[in-house]
Amino acid sequence: MQQYLSIKDIDDLGSCVQEAIDLKAHPRKHRNLGADKTLCLLFFNNSLRTRLSTQKAALHLGMDVIVMNFGSEGWQLEFGDGTVMDRGTSEHIKEAAKVVSQYADIVAIRAFAQLLDKEQDQAEVVLQGFAKHATIPVVNMESSVGHPLQALADAITLSEQCTIKKPKVVLSWAPHPKALPHAVANSFVEMMQRQQAEFVIAHPKGYDLDPAITQGATITYDQDAALKDADFVYVKNWSSFNHYGEVLNQDPHWKMTLEKLGAAKFMHCLPVRRNVIVTDDVLDSPQSLVIEQANNRTYAAQIVLKKILEHI
Amino acid sequence: MQQYLSIKDIDDLGSCVQEAIDLKAHPRKHRNLGADKTLCLLFFNNSLRTRLSTQKAALHLGMDVIVMNFGSEGWQLEFGDGTVMDRGTSEHIKEAAKVVSQYADIVAIRAFAQLLDKEQDQAEVVLQGFAKHATIPVVNMESSVGHPLQALADAITLSEQCTIKKPKVVLSWAPHPKALPHAVANSFVEMMQRQQAEFVIAHPKGYDLDPAITQGATITYDQDAALKDADFVYVKNWSSFNHYGEVLNQDPHWKMTLEKLGAAKFMHCLPVRRNVIVTDDVLDSPQSLVIEQANNRTYAAQIVLKKILEHI
Amino acid sequence: MQQYLSIKDIDDLGSCVQEAIDLKAHPRKHRNLGADKTLCLLFFNNSLRTRLSTQKAALHLGMDVIVMNFGSEGWQLEFGDGTVMDRGTSEHIKEAAKVVSQYADIVAIRAFAQLLDKEQDQAEVVLQGFAKHATIPVVNMESSVGHPLQALADAITLSEQCTIKKPKVVLSWAPHPKALPHAVANSFVEMMQRQQAEFVIAHPKGYDLDPAITQGATITYDQDAALKDADFVYVKNWSSFNHYGEVLNQDPHWKMTLEKLGAAKFMHCLPVRRNVIVTDDVLDSPQSLVIEQANNRTYAAQIVLKKILEHI
Repeated sequence: MQQYLSIKDIDDLGSCVQEAIDLKAHPRKHRNLGADKTLCLLFFNNSLRTRLSTQKAALHLGMDVIVMNFGSEGWQLEFGDGTVMDRGTSEHIKEAAKVVSQYADIVAIRAFAQLLDKEQDQAEVVLQGFAKHATIPVVNMESSVGHPLQALADAITLSEQCTIKKPKVVLSWAPHPKALPHAVANSFVEMMQRQQAEFVIAHPKGYDLDPAITQGATITYDQDAALKDADFVYVKNWSSFNHYGEVLNQDPHWKMTLEKLGAAKFMHCLPVRRNVIVTDDVLDSPQSLVIEQANNRTYAAQIVLKKILEHI
Repeated sequence: MQQYLSIKDIDDLGSCVQEAIDLKAHPRKHRNLGADKTLCLLFFNNSLRTRLSTQKAALHLGMDVIVMNFGSEGWQLEFGDGTVMDRGTSEHIKEAAKVVSQYADIVAIRAFAQLLDKEQDQAEVVLQGFAKHATIPVVNMESSVGHPLQALADAITLSEQCTIKKPKVVLSWAPHPKALPHAVANSFVEMMQRQQAEFVIAHPKGYDLDPAITQGATITYDQDAALKDADFVYVKNWSSFNHYGEVLNQDPHWKMTLEKLGAAKFMHCLPVRRNVIVTDDVLDSPQSLVIEQANNRTYAAQIVLKKILEHI
Repeated sequence: MQQYLSIKDIDDLGSCVQEAIDLKAHPRKHRNLGADKTLCLLFFNNSLRTRLSTQKAALHLGMDVIVMNFGSEGWQLEFGDGTVMDRGTSEHIKEAAKVVSQYADIVAIRAFAQLLDKEQDQAEVVLQGFAKHATIPVVNMESSVGHPLQALADAITLSEQCTIKKPKVVLSWAPHPKALPHAVANSFVEMMQRQQAEFVIAHPKGYDLDPAITQGATITYDQDAALKDADFVYVKNWSSFNHYGEVLNQDPHWKMTLEKLGAAKFMHCLPVRRNVIVTDDVLDSPQSLVIEQANNRTYAAQIVLKKILEHI
């Protein structure tokens, strides 16, 4: 693997998931693979799971890790071509990406959608800027468009938890007081489109995801119908894509409850707002897979780093 | 040791101090004990000594260390039961503690008293929230109620410096412009109650510490009487406990001076405001033990981590 | 080497540069030299290159690294003698420096000029405060007066790129919207004064650097004359030294262009504001050495750390 910008950078998802599950059983097996190699994590946004699990994954592989909060510890980057930089930006991505490449062997980037400018978010300016100008492999720790480490962890979790050949998996929108990006939902959809599964996306009118991503997927505005006989229910909020970044409504009827969930397993990428997205009793039940999803973030990151290290 | 939430988690303080002094002589002796083990430090408040000494202690034991400033690098946690999380908090301690437990073998937490809500501070909501929900051992790097790593370092310093069987040790309040927590004083008192010593607490009226902690201790409002024939004088400011979090006065007469100190050794946890808490000449004299106390923070953390690692 | 506060701490610059170039060819050759040694990086200001390259250098030598953003993760230090610390400062440099010395073997400090008080900046209060009170070697990661790791990296770059015996090297001021410190220019001048080169400083009237530093150097207000037949052009903005910290003008005629540069190589310490300091076509041309300068920051830091480790 030369980079990990989206789930599409994985050739064979099934075998990649299986390799990750093998790593989970023997996390230090490849402890020498990363010797004398440095991973640099650059955070343009806050993080808990990604921050800790990606470091842990690198440590398992024997890598050194350097963490930097670019926003608070560095300065504002310029992404425009030909800009006269006499305003707030102090360094161009052309220099920043090449410079970081001097000090590390792999660079991982987190830069959320700002939900202010659809075109800029869709272009993933920070991630793609590094991908274009860095001379080392780039890993996406959540960009404005996708969160492929989360989607890979979710694929691992589904594989571990699924006992039937073709499960019914539902991605169900949930209300949230703030406008959230589409990245987790996008990457989950892209991942599910490569699974043996009956996959349904359910959300209120107005919350359609990018049609270029959901193309071919079953989409419904009827949550009840979607949840019927579901094996896995992945709940997630996102803001409107058409009315870009807007919170059109916070309809509490879309909150997940134990009654709605039925016998299905519950999934969420975390952090989750209890009793807004989902009721306490779901999260506290054995049907909740959220902690195992978080655990699998380590092995998703580790298999990606391993495949990149083998390619370097 | 299964956790280190308070000094009470040490069964035999005397032997623990002796083991720490042995470690200090051979800090890398147990360099393989922490191999393949990760310590995660979570800071909800700022730190200098604790931040550096705890990392150093873990490195001595061969552990990997991951540091996170939870407030600025993560988000606000919810601690209430059954809360509808539609306000400022983004993740519940139930998830956060379990999630962090996936990525580390020991988690250490710093979360100061906010001095706004006595009941909430007394409940140590952050520390006890992690202790309750984490599935790995938790270490207290200063909670709203106690600072047991400091108290253990102080016990080490007393043991090293004391040449008589039953020294007189005085905890003497000092003025300070800001309202400070009670944690250092509380843990020092709890530690001293387990020492062979004549222990006296001196402070102005209104500054009585939590009686549940000071019970049985000698308390006086007369600093001069307390200091008479003292061997060690531990100076520290704290705000009122009864008038919770208030600065009742900043009486400069309580400032420690070389004259008042006499032949005693001077102790303070640092940071210390020179010429407010204590005069320059005390800090610059050979009677000051403050730098050695800071040095012993490493070995306090190291003996705690070692005992926990041996238990894992 | 006992410390690295300025380029003057290098006895023989030529052989030091040659050793750094040897290290660059075999960066892990001395991987055991730093075993069981800890480098503590204290940032009072933001950093990208210095933050990453100094960590990388330490890792090459097998050192452990602890990074702390003193401002945001610690508190405000007091530097005055005899101050009654009843205001904003919580800890005196006397304690802070001695305390940090307990937890590390080498401490590196970044503390920029604030450009508010010339005398205070000239005294390098933070760096010299640590140098005076720390009991371990101190490394300058850019002080209010100098940036000797940058200057050493620049010396390495010049040595690698120079094919003639006595090149003409020009330090040419450039416009910038904000008031910038003199540190990079100062250290570059000090370094050049120890080189076999024809060295010229060019800047508009009013931008003379500290005459105590530039003494003996050729200084001109005529950029065209300075650039004539130049082999290397180092471009950098700085604010006025006489009208301390003021931006007297932002004359765009001083911006570097490909036409002005001629056949010379272009150097800049980065971050650089494109089309303000220098045009895109210069930075994107093979004449630009900026990425190699950044790369050499690692080996500048590494040779300094190596020489200090050999002295400890």
